Amino acid sequence: MTQRIDFQTDPSRYRHWRVAYDGPVATVFMDVDENGGLFDGYQLKLNSYDLGVDIELADVVQRMRFEHPEVGAVVLRSGKDRVFCAGANIRMLGGATHGHKVNFCKFTNETRNALEAAGAESGQRYICAIKGACAGGGYELALACDHIILTDDGATSVALPEVPLLAVLPGTGGLTRVTDKRKVRRDLADVFCSIEEGVKGKRAEEWRLVDEVAPNSKFEERVAARAREFAERAKPANADKGIALTPLQRAFAEDGSVRYSLVEAHIDRSKGVATIAIAGPDGKAPASIAELHAQGASAWILRLARELDDAILHLRLNEPEIGVLVFKSHGDPLEVVAHEKLVADNCKTDWLAREIQLYWKRVFKRIDLTSRSLVALIENGSCFAGLLAEIPFACDRAYMMQGAFEGDNRAAASITLTSANFGPFPMSNDLTRLQTRFLGEPDKVEEAAEAKGKTLEAAEASELGLVTFVFDEVDWDEEVRIFLEERASFSPDAMTGMEANLRFPGPETMETRIFGRLTAWQNWIFQRPNAVGENGALKRYGTGVRGDYDRRRV
Amino acid sequence: MTQRIDFQTDPSRYRHWRVAYDGPVATVFMDVDENGGLFDGYQLKLNSYDLGVDIELADVVQRMRFEHPEVGAVVLRSGKDRVFCAGANIRMLGGATHGHKVNFCKFTNETRNALEAAGAESGQRYICAIKGACAGGGYELALACDHIILTDDGATSVALPEVPLLAVLPGTGGLTRVTDKRKVRRDLADVFCSIEEGVKGKRAEEWRLVDEVAPNSKFEERVAARAREFAERAKPANADKGIALTPLQRAFAEDGSVRYSLVEAHIDRSKGVATIAIAGPDGKAPASIAELHAQGASAWILRLARELDDAILHLRLNEPEIGVLVFKSHGDPLEVVAHEKLVADNCKTDWLAREIQLYWKRVFKRIDLTSRSLVALIENGSCFAGLLAEIPFACDRAYMMQGAFEGDNRAAASITLTSANFGPFPMSNDLTRLQTRFLGEPDKVEEAAEAKGKTLEAAEASELGLVTFVFDEVDWDEEVRIFLEERASFSPDAMTGMEANLRFPGPETMETRIFGRLTAWQNWIFQRPNAVGENGALKRYGTGVRGDYDRRRV
Repeated sequence: MTQRIDFQTDPSRYRHWRVAYDGPVATVFMDVDENGGLFDGYQLKLNSYDLGVDIELADVVQRMRFEHPEVGAVVLRSGKDRVFCAGANIRMLGGATHGHKVNFCKFTNETRNALEAAGAESGQRYICAIKGACAGGGYELALACDHIILTDDGATSVALPEVPLLAVLPGTGGLTRVTDKRKVRRDLADVFCSIEEGVKGKRAEEWRLVDEVAPNSKFEERVAARAREFAERAKPANADKGIALTPLQRAFAEDGSVRYSLVEAHIDRSKGVATIAIAGPDGKAPASIAELHAQGASAWILRLARELDDAILHLRLNEPEIGVLVFKSHGDPLEVVAHEKLVADNCKTDWLAREIQLYWKRVFKRIDLTSRSLVALIENGSCFAGLLAEIPFACDRAYMMQGAFEGDNRAAASITLTSANFGPFPMSNDLTRLQTRFLGEPDKVEEAAEAKGKTLEAAEASELGLVTFVFDEVDWDEEVRIFLEERASFSPDAMTGMEANLRFPGPETMETRIFGRLTAWQNWIFQRPNAVGENGALKRYGTGVRGDYDRRRV
Repeated sequence: MTQRIDFQTDPSRYRHWRVAYDGPVATVFMDVDENGGLFDGYQLKLNSYDLGVDIELADVVQRMRFEHPEVGAVVLRSGKDRVFCAGANIRMLGGATHGHKVNFCKFTNETRNALEAAGAESGQRYICAIKGACAGGGYELALACDHIILTDDGATSVALPEVPLLAVLPGTGGLTRVTDKRKVRRDLADVFCSIEEGVKGKRAEEWRLVDEVAPNSKFEERVAARAREFAERAKPANADKGIALTPLQRAFAEDGSVRYSLVEAHIDRSKGVATIAIAGPDGKAPASIAELHAQGASAWILRLARELDDAILHLRLNEPEIGVLVFKSHGDPLEVVAHEKLVADNCKTDWLAREIQLYWKRVFKRIDLTSRSLVALIENGSCFAGLLAEIPFACDRAYMMQGAFEGDNRAAASITLTSANFGPFPMSNDLTRLQTRFLGEPDKVEEAAEAKGKTLEAAEASELGLVTFVFDEVDWDEEVRIFLEERASFSPDAMTGMEANLRFPGPETMETRIFGRLTAWQNWIFQRPNAVGENGALKRYGTGVRGDYDRRRV
């Protein structure tokens, strides 16, 4: 698995999905190409999926929001006759490294969250129309939809057979959505997760596993009626014409570094560090919402979000040995604030402004959830203002330059807070990053709010508790070097576990529970011989021989 | 590690702790006997601890509540000169099986929760007086106290050096209490957890790591003053004289089965099943609170709690291959209700009634948190009434007999609900077991409340959603057999992960976050070669050579 995984695609390149548009209703067909796996060694039979299939799905969901804002209801269904979806491909999982398994699950989880967010935030609600077997990751995909209709044809069932069949958990949110979203009674959930063949018909509805069961003869009619009903309820305002998400400009270097129009991720392999440099606006903010629409994907604020998102995904999947991500920025903080203001001021009335705002929310969450040490270096000439200030707040630590640096005539390092830091970009725990930061001192959030609009240099930023350390010319280079070396010397696993705990203090949500509790247990199981050992269930799958288990409980 | 671990002890046998009583103030000295380790192969230097040390601590905390209800403030301190506590013993951890590590952490977590509960529920608040190095599990013990005083002697520090030193997490609640209880700012928490030598003096207070720092010359005075102040605030009502927690009557069989006066845990090793049979009252309920006090530890309701608690701990630590616990009961449900009523009616005014009630809360939590499949068999002649009905509600599934069984003249199987099922025994998630069960149908909790006091046989219990399945004579034996065999065939690890997710739907608390998020990540790390492999940090500890890490992040 040394090829570079590419998270960019577009409909002309899809191998596994088709989308049919019919005014406010879109239908997404899952029709996986058996021979279109991302890697060799497995066939994607029965609409099973690998990361490549999910990258396309993420693209479908993303383009639906930007390119087809007129859509108010999306029907998700199978393009194959007798199967809805058999879930994640087992041979792929059996052959994958631990790191790939974990990252695969994380990305698919993020895609399912994005699908749920489309319904909750943009009124693009997903209806899952199930005909044919729907198992494991297939049912988890259904669980992420807003409404599940099951045909009662005597054969179609929903199932989570991972535990009995594979000795792993339904790890793409399945267990959590069964208990937290669908609120299935816990003992029935226990029974459901133990039945390989799943649950059919009325019982699936009684157990709250699906929203409705339709007689097979009425299934199409019912799905169409539901779609119309959902689309009518959505009534997207002024959303007649989308914008095109044109291909990103980017160039990969031999060493894995990548340069976009505004983002550069530079890899220092010997140190285990990638430095992500973010450029502020390269032009004035659009003068009006009409101009923003005209600029479309080339608008600074959207282009940056897409490039940053792609860079993070590239580093996550393709550069596992890069344990530290250093964020820097350069540009004019006032220009950042101006660009952001147009979007923030219009996000209640203009669909594109809203979608840009919501996309940034997802990008920031992607950063929060990245299992690498995150550090912001707030240097002279940087532009961590408004929404870009969320980046240091997302980091494990932020270091800031203080005072004059010889030979450096850039503007003094600063942070500028705006309304962006006080509401629109909650973390998965539903708190803002500043609320999370000041869980023990909520007054500090108020204090920060009073400093909105000010150019906060090191002393003030430190006083307000916005940065971890400030250093002057004498200490800066040395302190940063020591920190990066120290971080690189720690166990990557201990870092992952520590960061997963410290980054999400306080309240939990379904989302944090998926990435915290569920994922952590799944990752543990993904290490256990009972699943992945030579005689484990994942390895033995398809051989006709069951896993041979060490019976000791821990 | 094949010797049987015994969870019963008493002050006459303590090797590691001393307690001094002075009216409303008690002082607990940690003074670990280097040579008193539970297993061979390590010395408990520098007040480091193993499970044996923690079993004694749990006993101290438990006896404080029952035997010394007059105590309102407990000072926890070191009995050694230059060290407070160096945390869990590393050589012990390095040599322990994965299962022992996990169970050790679980028990120590439960002990720390019990210590916190003593302050919150019984007004026995713990003051941690730190003089000398306080690292890792030592600081985690401090974190579980209500108040931390640190001496400012230039040498004393608090530290969580696990990550830099051992490549594991501070796994006994440390990370969670730092963020959730003490609400340390997340970037400062990140720094703190990266510094081997810890944080001293004023900085420890500024970072919220301790409550107060006292000059070394005023330390004793400050500790004494705080203790008096806490004791005065506690003012325990009518708590002049405790009861003695006399030794349990029990007999272990060769095969690991154990018989107490009211509980019998019978092991069927070939099936991987332990059947825990609980006897209802063997006499009338005490006629008065005075009689309850006179009966003391021999009162049915307290005796049963202690025996059940001990049986669960025995099975957890000594019988790892027993994957399924089957709970049965036998006795008169009306008598259970009568015994429980005396305690419930008086728990607001009588300290002993209150302590018995609170102890049951901890016993039920111990069951919830037991990583074995839990099933209740509600048979004819059983007495799952009131508080004992919490047991089937804690189980993953409950099977109930319906109708007449040939040759069985016992009373028909029934469940009786009382106020015990609607408030006094919340789970770690702060919901009752019925609220947790009916997360998706809160009306069902109301419906169940209306059935309080009724003898609910199978049809009614099933209709109310209180049991998973009911079976009559024709199917009972076969269905139970099939279920137990099926359960035994599943991967123990998948069961552990599934149960950890399904048992705790919905809201999280600091407690569930410790057992869910933190513990799951720690367990994952406890499997990783970077920690436990031949070149891992835990194995190399003490050799002077650092761990050699696989640098791939996951």
